[in-house]
Amino acid sequence: MKFLFELLSKHSVSGDESEIARFIFDYVSKRASSWKVRPIVYFGEEFHDCLLLKFGEPKTAVFAHLDTVGFMTRYQNQLITVGGPEVVEGTKLVGKDSKGDISCTILGDDEACFHDFPRGIDRGTRLSFEQNIRLDEEYIQAAYLDNRLGIYNALLLCETLENGWVVFSTYEEHGGGSMPFLLNFIQNEAPIKQALISDITWVTEGVEHHKGVVISIRDKFIPRKSFIDKLIKIAERSTVAFQLEVEAYGGSDGREVQFSPHLIDWCFVGAAEENVHTPDEKVSLFDLECMIRMYRFLMENL
Amino acid sequence: MKFLFELLSKHSVSGDESEIARFIFDYVSKRASSWKVRPIVYFGEEFHDCLLLKFGEPKTAVFAHLDTVGFMTRYQNQLITVGGPEVVEGTKLVGKDSKGDISCTILGDDEACFHDFPRGIDRGTRLSFEQNIRLDEEYIQAAYLDNRLGIYNALLLCETLENGWVVFSTYEEHGGGSMPFLLNFIQNEAPIKQALISDITWVTEGVEHHKGVVISIRDKFIPRKSFIDKLIKIAERSTVAFQLEVEAYGGSDGREVQFSPHLIDWCFVGAAEENVHTPDEKVSLFDLECMIRMYRFLMENL
Amino acid sequence: MKFLFELLSKHSVSGDESEIARFIFDYVSKRASSWKVRPIVYFGEEFHDCLLLKFGEPKTAVFAHLDTVGFMTRYQNQLITVGGPEVVEGTKLVGKDSKGDISCTILGDDEACFHDFPRGIDRGTRLSFEQNIRLDEEYIQAAYLDNRLGIYNALLLCETLENGWVVFSTYEEHGGGSMPFLLNFIQNEAPIKQALISDITWVTEGVEHHKGVVISIRDKFIPRKSFIDKLIKIAERSTVAFQLEVEAYGGSDGREVQFSPHLIDWCFVGAAEENVHTPDEKVSLFDLECMIRMYRFLMENL
Repeated sequence: MKFLFELLSKHSVSGDESEIARFIFDYVSKRASSWKVRPIVYFGEEFHDCLLLKFGEPKTAVFAHLDTVGFMTRYQNQLITVGGPEVVEGTKLVGKDSKGDISCTILGDDEACFHDFPRGIDRGTRLSFEQNIRLDEEYIQAAYLDNRLGIYNALLLCETLENGWVVFSTYEEHGGGSMPFLLNFIQNEAPIKQALISDITWVTEGVEHHKGVVISIRDKFIPRKSFIDKLIKIAERSTVAFQLEVEAYGGSDGREVQFSPHLIDWCFVGAAEENVHTPDEKVSLFDLECMIRMYRFLMENL
Repeated sequence: MKFLFELLSKHSVSGDESEIARFIFDYVSKRASSWKVRPIVYFGEEFHDCLLLKFGEPKTAVFAHLDTVGFMTRYQNQLITVGGPEVVEGTKLVGKDSKGDISCTILGDDEACFHDFPRGIDRGTRLSFEQNIRLDEEYIQAAYLDNRLGIYNALLLCETLENGWVVFSTYEEHGGGSMPFLLNFIQNEAPIKQALISDITWVTEGVEHHKGVVISIRDKFIPRKSFIDKLIKIAERSTVAFQLEVEAYGGSDGREVQFSPHLIDWCFVGAAEENVHTPDEKVSLFDLECMIRMYRFLMENL
Repeated sequence: MKFLFELLSKHSVSGDESEIARFIFDYVSKRASSWKVRPIVYFGEEFHDCLLLKFGEPKTAVFAHLDTVGFMTRYQNQLITVGGPEVVEGTKLVGKDSKGDISCTILGDDEACFHDFPRGIDRGTRLSFEQNIRLDEEYIQAAYLDNRLGIYNALLLCETLENGWVVFSTYEEHGGGSMPFLLNFIQNEAPIKQALISDITWVTEGVEHHKGVVISIRDKFIPRKSFIDKLIKIAERSTVAFQLEVEAYGGSDGREVQFSPHLIDWCFVGAAEENVHTPDEKVSLFDLECMIRMYRFLMENL
């Protein structure tokens, strides 16, 4: 959990993922020697702020996005959003510009929002939710669980993974843009037929806390039925608790797998949270545990 | 017409096109030996649920999408849409889940819709309009004319086609996703410069029944003027009745040709229908005949 | 300025860029021998109506779009838009169809607009703003400044450019579609890591006339922070006046760089205008001069 807490302390609003990418690269560099299989690591300026790990002979890739929603300063004390954060007056934001550290509060609402920082902030400065991690027997609650838990899950998977890609993408919260490159790179290097999206979804009337990891039959986009059927059959053999999601809205890196020029089946598999895109995202520890166990099982059996 | 009636009896809501793809593959396997040119057939898991036929030395490809709009069960007795079906209370839907066949009726409207099936239906089950084919001297009326008539046209074209691709795509009604792969495959295998979209469009104030096949100058997206001009000139020489469409909305597989990394000119050519995306789609038999004759002429003269 | 006036006299509503592309090709053919480096020119049917110039050994590409917003005739005397022109009753439009030259006036508004031309106009005919160029000590005002000034800037850059691509794209105002091809072509021929978008942006509460060329930190889409930081540092060394833009809306060819499968950093750099997408677009001559000087500096120092 110490590592998860460190992960949760990083800032990575879309377009500014270099710090967290470097942090993960350092973690991988330290830990990889203790993993069952040592992966080939693709990282550096040629990959912008993405990172890819290749284990053995991959059939399937796991994607976890590095970025979070946030805000950007516009003119005067105006704020505009990056991705789709909830805009709630009084929410604390933090960041940094050429003049130093920033800590301020949101004024206004979705229609027009502002900060109350006493001095001007450089144009285009990224601000994100002040972190406040709360942990009890049942839940973890914090900012950025979407998608730090998806990253955490992917990195735990690495410990025992024998064959597969584990890939960290950027820009997912703001329209995407790194996935087309990542998919081309993968298909050129060691092609896959299947992709799992390691990300966090929503608690809804049909998806509840403590009911297990979510396997998503669809969000705004629709994976191929034959693949979902196959994946659910494997999940049923896993003894890990899971629940099926069917939504008309929302998206993930799966969208870009769907629209890529590669015929790769994909499915979103991840824990559900309340208070999406707020500083109070809340996930059941049982569901997180199920996510971790399900990924191990799926990557062995898909 | 017997074959068209069979085609109309299949279900293929987006993401679940495997049955109809297999049905077309079987048809092609039986019939191809009687065609003027025997095509090379690309089909199987490597192509997901798409199918490609290569005749001779192609300059042009014809695309027909396999999928239809429909519904998906969500939680309790909720329904959400796949593609953009008209949601009309009282409409009959059919489908199948792990417990057996389903036949039910839509309750509610666009904002919130439900089914009245007495038992629960598995989450994520696809439902589609109950079929009811009506044929008279002037019209065919049925569910799924969009795009079973486009498929039918493409398969009739195969009988005499000497050079060209005939391609069956998936997911067209729900955002697309197979075209990028199909276009890459084609450009790699036997590249083309031109594409015709064999699909069904709308009767409007400027497009009427019995006035011939529609050549679309634009829908939401805009093909290149120089290609449309050339195509219309050829159409004028054909003696086949046609009418020109200019719309601000709507899309087709042409959209994905436009946004692909290949410079392929494209145009939508197809009959118009009333009652779009309902169980009562209605097409003039004369317009369908014009569509079939126009495709033969265009593929010989483009 | 004579050349700019000629450029401003051409019509090139999206999808109909062949005339202006040919005009630029002729200009390049005449002038290239006097340029510091003679570029390789890519032009012709294989490139549709795009044009690419390769100078030396490129690290960076400059993109300028050839098309403008406009209108298309629908049925009866209806008009629909191409791109997003302002629809103002009384605005003069010009064009040409099979029966000859057209000059007419817009009736109606955004919801429903019409022309008052006494005879019918061929379906699908493009109409665009009547040109009226006004020049004084401080401003140029005309239709099509977006993006004739971007083209003009790109062509002036050619005079001294030693290394780089200068690329003229199509369809930018109507959803794009040529950039995916152009980017693939470039990456295959002489790959780049950086792109500048030579286009015109908006005067807003934070971007003013006479304050210099605009460097855009974001519009609807968000370039990578590390690249923007680097570019601004170089711009600061240039002694050319510039201002920073932060917008939540709007897009450019940069959007398609972002979503391409190539990891190419990009930034929009261009003068700002008032009266966007009207016949009265207005740009400060000082800002245009800054744009021209900034491109020279950036292309030498990026």
